[in-house]
Amino acid sequence: IHTIDMELEAIEKGGYEHFMLKEIFEQSKSITASMRGRVVADKHRLHLGGLTEYFNRLMSADRIMIVACGTSWHAGLVAEYLFEEFARVPVEVEYASEFRYRNPVIRENDVVIAISQSGETADTLAAIELAKSKGAIIFGVCNVVGASIPRATQAGAYIHAGPEIGVASTKAFTGQITVLTMMALMLAHRKGTISESKFREFLAELEKIPAKVEQALKLNDQIKYISDVFKDARNFLYLGRGYNFPVALEGALKLKEISYIHAEGYPAAEMKHGPIALIDEEMPVVFIATADSSYEKVVSNIQEVKARRGKVIAIVTEGDTQIKNIADHVIEIPKTPEALTPLISVIPLQLLSYHVAVMRGCNVDQPRNLAKSVTVE
Amino acid sequence: IHTIDMELEAIEKGGYEHFMLKEIFEQSKSITASMRGRVVADKHRLHLGGLTEYFNRLMSADRIMIVACGTSWHAGLVAEYLFEEFARVPVEVEYASEFRYRNPVIRENDVVIAISQSGETADTLAAIELAKSKGAIIFGVCNVVGASIPRATQAGAYIHAGPEIGVASTKAFTGQITVLTMMALMLAHRKGTISESKFREFLAELEKIPAKVEQALKLNDQIKYISDVFKDARNFLYLGRGYNFPVALEGALKLKEISYIHAEGYPAAEMKHGPIALIDEEMPVVFIATADSSYEKVVSNIQEVKARRGKVIAIVTEGDTQIKNIADHVIEIPKTPEALTPLISVIPLQLLSYHVAVMRGCNVDQPRNLAKSVTVE
Repeated sequence: IHTIDMELEAIEKGGYEHFMLKEIFEQSKSITASMRGRVVADKHRLHLGGLTEYFNRLMSADRIMIVACGTSWHAGLVAEYLFEEFARVPVEVEYASEFRYRNPVIRENDVVIAISQSGETADTLAAIELAKSKGAIIFGVCNVVGASIPRATQAGAYIHAGPEIGVASTKAFTGQITVLTMMALMLAHRKGTISESKFREFLAELEKIPAKVEQALKLNDQIKYISDVFKDARNFLYLGRGYNFPVALEGALKLKEISYIHAEGYPAAEMKHGPIALIDEEMPVVFIATADSSYEKVVSNIQEVKARRGKVIAIVTEGDTQIKNIADHVIEIPKTPEALTPLISVIPLQLLSYHVAVMRGCNVDQPRNLAKSVTVE
Repeated sequence: IHTIDMELEAIEKGGYEHFMLKEIFEQSKSITASMRGRVVADKHRLHLGGLTEYFNRLMSADRIMIVACGTSWHAGLVAEYLFEEFARVPVEVEYASEFRYRNPVIRENDVVIAISQSGETADTLAAIELAKSKGAIIFGVCNVVGASIPRATQAGAYIHAGPEIGVASTKAFTGQITVLTMMALMLAHRKGTISESKFREFLAELEKIPAKVEQALKLNDQIKYISDVFKDARNFLYLGRGYNFPVALEGALKLKEISYIHAEGYPAAEMKHGPIALIDEEMPVVFIATADSSYEKVVSNIQEVKARRGKVIAIVTEGDTQIKNIADHVIEIPKTPEALTPLISVIPLQLLSYHVAVMRGCNVDQPRNLAKSVTVE
């Protein structure tokens, strides 16, 4: 029976050595699935059916509160930037565990978005119950259909990423961001806080994302090479600004989870307020330094790290010439609008954590001490 | 001339080996200075003169936005809990560097509080200018009188902690929290969101803080002993919940800044979503586990770490019996109301970082790569 189980598992892994790798490589497909029937760029249409009934509440929201844990919390941080930029509504992102225990201020016109891959995260579920008891409307963003959180929320949208087996979340993260992007754009369009032309442009850009993810996945061999260089590091820093700040947190979390290397993410500008003291020749620093509004600032952060002999791995936009001259390793990803960058820039970070973990002999799909779905408080 | 300089410096250090140690030990005095003429408990009076002119704007604030960097940002996180609990106004805490570059939503009735020890922090100053250009009223919480930020803000309160020379901020942090606590209580009292009896109780408890800080400083020898045990650690985790979550971040930042050990703070409940994978017998974990509303939850987090053979140093309330049986080292601090705990619980963490850094031969007052006042962006 054991043999048959093993064979079944091998079939499920579809030729990949681990579920995590399979799921990383599935992302162009899973992002397509998240958008299917929702984004129709050539007809300039965007529709998420699960939001319809309570859409007016979203339209009139004075504030959006996002509650989540772990990787989903990082997706929430990306959503903060998306909703504020496009829909011009203030967003507060909270750790579900902190939110639920601190008697948060929830007002009549506040809307809560709860994010959870499994839909079973205990702290997030408890945060929802608390918010509901105060009269808030809750939108759920989950993967597992029919789980407790989708059942406890009044509205929401599934990410349709398909089953995620690896404990370290990958395709669920990009699925969450895809859905949250669609929500922000749909809201902005209805509110009139985004122009029709910009709206259409973003729909077209969203449809191009799966192909760009596919292109980013071709970096696998290069990233494997870089992973070999740094596999024995004891610490890592991950730095980014704006939309790439949450990506830095997520990249660091992936490495922590499966390679047991102490990696920490920070907004790049905060480096000077403490973390830069850690920099020496033994400290690799991963910068997400794509060609966006904070590019020049990030370049100067890279120079500061290099001046202290840190090792720099930089995720840059293809065609970048400036960073090539200062970073130790440069990983080029396809260009996309700044607001959609996390969907692409996270891919090399997922691959980096995967290869480092494999090279260190770690159990990638079932890292020590971690459970796939955290159903305890 | 060099000799005279050295002698002057020795005099200024007042018998302490480093400015940082002197400043840690000054905190009962500096907190008293922060409250002088402002808190008069026996007359049930609390008044911050610098808030008067724009107090109505604070009263009618729909939302408070706090912008800061580094240690001041941690004080801002404590303030979020204070203002939400007492004054029932939603608070959003932002890294100044992120806030200024992302076109944040600022509305007519929003109020901004900017926190900076030096009053010269470049990113915070730029965030203030941005918020002002959108019509927001800005309150400053600074230490250096007449600095750029107090001049750029319409209202505010100095912390009056006296000059802070050590690059790692200590007495400024407790001064900031003292002032922010007074602001939150004054607002709550005027709004009627706190009962008169509770208000009076907190004024009386605030006046007791300096004596409790004095008592916590007597832990110095014990903490020196513990520092010796862990001085060679390569990594540390700091965990807390609620009011002690920002304290965990601050404790970790202190250790990073002056000992160059990679220390990271986390809300304790997030441990299960990743960081627990790092735990093994080489990983010391500092828990701030005082007798408050989340005590039982923190105890169960400690048990999870011990089950994975992590080493636990716990900051507990004096008289604690439960944690004594499970933690490796227990540091007992005086009891104070939950909302005032950060003022006491941070003291042992400051001392821990100091002693570890000295034992590692680091330049405590001028750590590598760091400047006292970050006037570049």
